[in-house]
Parts: sequence; structure tokens; C-alpha cells
Amino acid sequence: MKLLRVGARGAERPAVLDADGRPRDLTGVLGGADIDGRFLSGGGIERVRAALEEGDLPVLDADGLRVGAPVVRPGKVVCIGLNYRDHAAESGADIPAEPVVFMKAPDTVIGPFDEVLIPRRSVKTDYEVELAIVIGKTARYLESREDALRVVAGYTISNDVSEREFQLERGGQWDKGKSCETFNPVGPWLVTADEVPDPQSLGLRLWVNGEPRQDGDTKEMIFGVAEVVRYLSQFMVLEPGDVVNTGTPAGVAMGMPGQPYLRAGDVVELEIDGLGRQRQTLGQA
Amino acid sequence: MKLLRVGARGAERPAVLDADGRPRDLTGVLGGADIDGRFLSGGGIERVRAALEEGDLPVLDADGLRVGAPVVRPGKVVCIGLNYRDHAAESGADIPAEPVVFMKAPDTVIGPFDEVLIPRRSVKTDYEVELAIVIGKTARYLESREDALRVVAGYTISNDVSEREFQLERGGQWDKGKSCETFNPVGPWLVTADEVPDPQSLGLRLWVNGEPRQDGDTKEMIFGVAEVVRYLSQFMVLEPGDVVNTGTPAGVAMGMPGQPYLRAGDVVELEIDGLGRQRQTLGQA
Repeated sequence: MKLLRVGARGAERPAVLDADGRPRDLTGVLGGADIDGRFLSGGGIERVRAALEEGDLPVLDADGLRVGAPVVRPGKVVCIGLNYRDHAAESGADIPAEPVVFMKAPDTVIGPFDEVLIPRRSVKTDYEVELAIVIGKTARYLESREDALRVVAGYTISNDVSEREFQLERGGQWDKGKSCETFNPVGPWLVTADEVPDPQSLGLRLWVNGEPRQDGDTKEMIFGVAEVVRYLSQFMVLEPGDVVNTGTPAGVAMGMPGQPYLRAGDVVELEIDGLGRQRQTLGQA
Repeated sequence: MKLLRVGARGAERPAVLDADGRPRDLTGVLGGADIDGRFLSGGGIERVRAALEEGDLPVLDADGLRVGAPVVRPGKVVCIGLNYRDHAAESGADIPAEPVVFMKAPDTVIGPFDEVLIPRRSVKTDYEVELAIVIGKTARYLESREDALRVVAGYTISNDVSEREFQLERGGQWDKGKSCETFNPVGPWLVTADEVPDPQSLGLRLWVNGEPRQDGDTKEMIFGVAEVVRYLSQFMVLEPGDVVNTGTPAGVAMGMPGQPYLRAGDVVELEIDGLGRQRQTLGQA
């Protein structure tokens, strides 16, 4: 299933795409609940599946409506760095021996078509198309990759927007360049795990102003989805609704000749096989 | 005022200490609301002050009741690293030219007397007494330190528990050693900013099994509270209820002869002038 949330910011309605790709309103069947950690861990996906099969969910007139992130603001957004060999190389970094972990502030999450703001005094705002994992069950000290896949509710697209000067040249840790306002468009859909039988075989692409910039495949990930989730659970508790950004392939502005960083007015489009498409226009904070 | 939350985990009741230091129940006056970002930004402190002055808040029988963190799980926990010269020195690090910023997962926040768990396979679990800032108003691109102080709701004690091997020897970024389960005891009280006229003149101390380990003063901070908040607001939006851990003075286990890291059964006590006292027993995850 493809779950989504449509409506103005803070007033999104939960919905599901039917067999014809039309959004069906879940407000009634969920009794006012939203697509969040409680929904994911409390049998929400199964309830929606049953309602969809019964066929009496009302069609949602989504024309002109904004699409929000497909999960309510997560408790945390955990990110894996340098998880594609070609991106590690273009970043001038060694291939990591174990996953590199950092965080984005959860309040950076916005909808997949919302405006992304270039921070004030930024000169190196960059893009990163990534496969995002949405956690469906509490996970601590998972023992195997099989156990890890069982806590994955589904997948979506994430743009891990990054300010490279803030991240790399301003002292210390990457988080400083990862948590600026609007820096994490997520969506359009939460595609449930059953519809993504092999998360290590998804093409992912990004364009800036129509020009191809990133074109990778999750088969090139150094640490795959199952290993990333198993590994993270050794260092932190993963909770339902948490989002894990799994890293980006080559082609970011930092790694290109001339370093064509983003400017106000630029249009970024992102796509992952089976997970839909995002499009953001850049604005100035 | 000193605000607190008492009761079992997830079922805490908001309270305020009266002039005699007795907790008064705020459940009624807040209409079921809790001490969170909405409370802090929506005039909650003023409502509580008026109710306390009217004198008809019921005394809460807190005997034997657990004390929770004084704010509901924050949207984010932002941390400043190496913010005391003596701690930077003992860590073998240079004095930072601008604040070093990293994150803790917000779900690491626990009550000030809750058990802290040593992670599985940890050999270097360490403590850090810190002055924590609680944000009261949305803040972005603050222009001055005066503006910064106006968004501070109050202060509390934070133990920024850290696993040094995970933080420093496992590839990449510090966050990996900062977000383990139970790694951020906060409290006992949120002391409103009016009761802390000079946040740069607070003694802060920490003991392990009764032995003094840290004994510093916030006047030794490299970047003070106002500058930390102003600075952070250039890189991220600070939201009501967010917590900022402002760094720790010298005396952590990593910097001591023999590196006496924490073990199950150890008792850690923390104190900051005017902000109360914490006490945690270490357990094993």
C-alpha cells in the first residue's frame, strides 16, 4: 500500500492510494488518528488494508491539495553517511569500515513538494537523494538482519539537504549543516514493506533544473537496509515512526566540477523506483 | 518558579514547588495539559504563577513518587561540545573557534533519578554534568544575545551520558555514542529564567560513588548561554520545549588517570547551584 497525508501543514489528512491510484480518505476509519508511530506499531497498516479491501473508503478530492510528509513528525531522524562507494570517493573520504551515523533535527521534515529554504549566509546548499526507512516497531539490540527487516514498516524518498560549509568547515560535527529549516523533504508516500520485496534493487535519481545529477541504485549501498537497522539498534532504540536516511550515491554538487550548489529558484526533482517522485523549488530563508 | 513532573513514566503529573518547597498539582489548572512546548510558548508559566499566587493549588502527595524529566519529550536535544577550556584540554582537543554542535536522540531523555543503562558491549560509558537550557519560544536567525535570552524559558540539569568508544573510535560522528537508551537524565526541575538572573555564575558538580569528579562553574564556558542560543538559531530553528545541553567541565572519566568509566551498580550524583540535584544508579542493558 501507499500511505500519504494531504492537506495544509499541520492539518494533513491520512489517505491511501487505491488500485486506480486515487487517494482514499482514512480520517473516518482511523477515528481521527494520524499516520504516526502509534498507528504503525498498533496494527494501523492492517486496519487500512482491510478497509481498502472492503472498498468503502471515500475518495479524497486531493486536487490542488498539498502533500505532507507521509508520517507525522518523527521522534528522530537518523542518517547514514558515506554509504555509497562513489559518493565516499567524490567526498574525498575513505570507505567506512562500519556505518557513519549522524542526526537531523526531526523538525526539518517537510512535504515532498514544499519549498526548501537556503539558509541565510549559506553558499554551499546541496541535495542528496536517499532511500528512507520508516520504523514500525520498537527495536533494541536486534540480533540478525532478518529481525531488522521485521521492524521496517516501509520506505519513502528523502532529500537529505545539506549545507557543506556548515557541515564540514565550521568546526566539529556534521549535524550543524544537516538541521537547517526545511532540510528534509520526505514522501510522497510511505510504501509498505510488502510492496518493496528487495530494497537493495531500487534505482534512485535526482535532477536540478531538469539536468540529471544523481543516478544510482540501492544495490550499491555499502551497508544495506537490514544491516543499517541491525547496526543502529546496537547504539540506540529505534522507535515506531522514526526515519532512517540511508545515504546518497554520487553526484552531489560538492563532488561535481565547479560545485554547482543550489540557489534560490532552482528546482530539484527526486525519484526512486516504486516510491514516487518529489519536486522542490528553492527559496531563500 | 520550579516546575516538575511526578509519577510513573508516561503518566507524570505537572507540578510546581510552593514557597515551602512542597509540590502543588497543576493537573486541574492546566486542564490536562502537560509541561511541553505548547505550555511554554502559550503562556503556561504565567498561568501557573497566577495560580500559585492565588494559593489554591492542591498539595501533591509526592512521597515515593518518581520524578520525571521536567519537560515532556523534547522535539530535539542539541548539544554543545568542548565548551569548557579544561574539558577541551583533558579531551586532547583544541579550544573551538565556534561552538561544536551535535545531537542526542530526544528519546534518551529520562527522569533525574531513573536508572541509566550501560549499553551492551560498552566499555567506556562516561558522565557529563551540564547546564541545560529549555527553549520557550520559536527562534530563528536571532540577531543578538539579548534576543537569545528572551527565548529561554528556563534551566535544568542534564547528564549528557556518553559512550566514548562509540563516540570516538567507531567511525565518523559523535552522535553514535550519545544516543544510547537512557543516556540523558534531565531535571529535577525546570527553573524559570527569572530565578536564574546570571546563568554564567553557577557552580556545577558531579560525584561517582560519593567521590567528587567534576567541580566547575558556568563562568568558565567558552560560549555562554546567550551566545549558544543566538549561534544555534543561525543553523536550525529552535522550538519551544527543545533542550540545549551546554557542555561539561573537566573531570569526565575519559580525562582522568586510569579512566574510571562507569560500571553497573555505580551511583552518579549531579548538582548545579539553584537547580537541584540528580542521582542515578547504573544498570546493564
